[in-house]
Amino acid sequence: MTPVPGNRPSDSGEDARVARTRVDVARAALEVLTGEGSEAITHARVAEIAGYSKTTLYTHWPARVDLIIIAIEALGQMPHHERTGDLRADVVGELKVFRKGILDMRLDRVLTGMAQWASEEQMRQVRDKVNTDGQHQMYAMLGELISGAALDAGVSMLTGVVACPSLMFGTVPDDDIIEAAVDIVLTSARSPR
Amino acid sequence: MTPVPGNRPSDSGEDARVARTRVDVARAALEVLTGEGSEAITHARVAEIAGYSKTTLYTHWPARVDLIIIAIEALGQMPHHERTGDLRADVVGELKVFRKGILDMRLDRVLTGMAQWASEEQMRQVRDKVNTDGQHQMYAMLGELISGAALDAGVSMLTGVVACPSLMFGTVPDDDIIEAAVDIVLTSARSPR
Repeated sequence: MTPVPGNRPSDSGEDARVARTRVDVARAALEVLTGEGSEAITHARVAEIAGYSKTTLYTHWPARVDLIIIAIEALGQMPHHERTGDLRADVVGELKVFRKGILDMRLDRVLTGMAQWASEEQMRQVRDKVNTDGQHQMYAMLGELISGAALDAGVSMLTGVVACPSLMFGTVPDDDIIEAAVDIVLTSARSPR
Repeated sequence: MTPVPGNRPSDSGEDARVARTRVDVARAALEVLTGEGSEAITHARVAEIAGYSKTTLYTHWPARVDLIIIAIEALGQMPHHERTGDLRADVVGELKVFRKGILDMRLDRVLTGMAQWASEEQMRQVRDKVNTDGQHQMYAMLGELISGAALDAGVSMLTGVVACPSLMFGTVPDDDIIEAAVDIVLTSARSPR
């Protein structure tokens, strides 16, 4: 039988195998990233967790940054607070969900991995996706009161009040710091210009 | 001649040699950290730049984190804005000096290095020193208007508006974002409770 290019049973078998390998390796890479940190992401370690050979990993993902990228792609959607209509409660709630994500999903390690490889073009795309997905609800909420540079600054400051201590000091803010930060932004947004 | 412990010429000669090695290696490690990023800090790379053998480096600084710590210790004092007495201008000025430090001294790479090894006890001490040194002027300025959780939140938010984009996205904020962030904090601080 003459093989038909792109349509051979062995081809689709191989495609399925490659797809399965990708899912397994991405899951293992994410497990290493969130469980042990970006420093621990090596071909040897991810291969060990995924149950594949190092050679297989090097073939598909030649650089360490490739493994970090597929790990982050495997993260899925960012968690968000379910809005109630009370703006202050909703902004505070959103920041607490983000804080919980740092503690439970170790999003700080994901952020650190992204930061470390910030100059890689491919990482930029993944990062922008995670970022957009992570911040869109905060933009929508604060966008009810402010716009322009104030809106960008407000979102950056509130994201930062949770992300920065976790990145810089390995800690997360207490409730009273989160609430004080939200009050600073909302008080300013509601004050007459 | 009977050697006198701790007082032999060879001893002080060795002490001086060790001290010189430490200075040379710390400077080389800082050069690699800010020039190439924390990922590039390896015994081989730092030894190459410093002009010492890898064996010497492993003897004094067995782990990579040890090299990152002496690099950060070699940073010196954080730069600060010279205060004029105009609070808004001074807070904006302080954030612009911080932004300049990120661009010129690549403080973002220093922050990333600290973040990556946040769980190491020794790193915690170095980080707390850099942090205290970096934030004390902002604490003093905002402390004229606010206190308690609002002060902690305000400092964290304003530091974050510069540090976070650099850590998370490899960018720094424009002047209008910095000014909007400062106005948010000052407007809120000056509004009646």
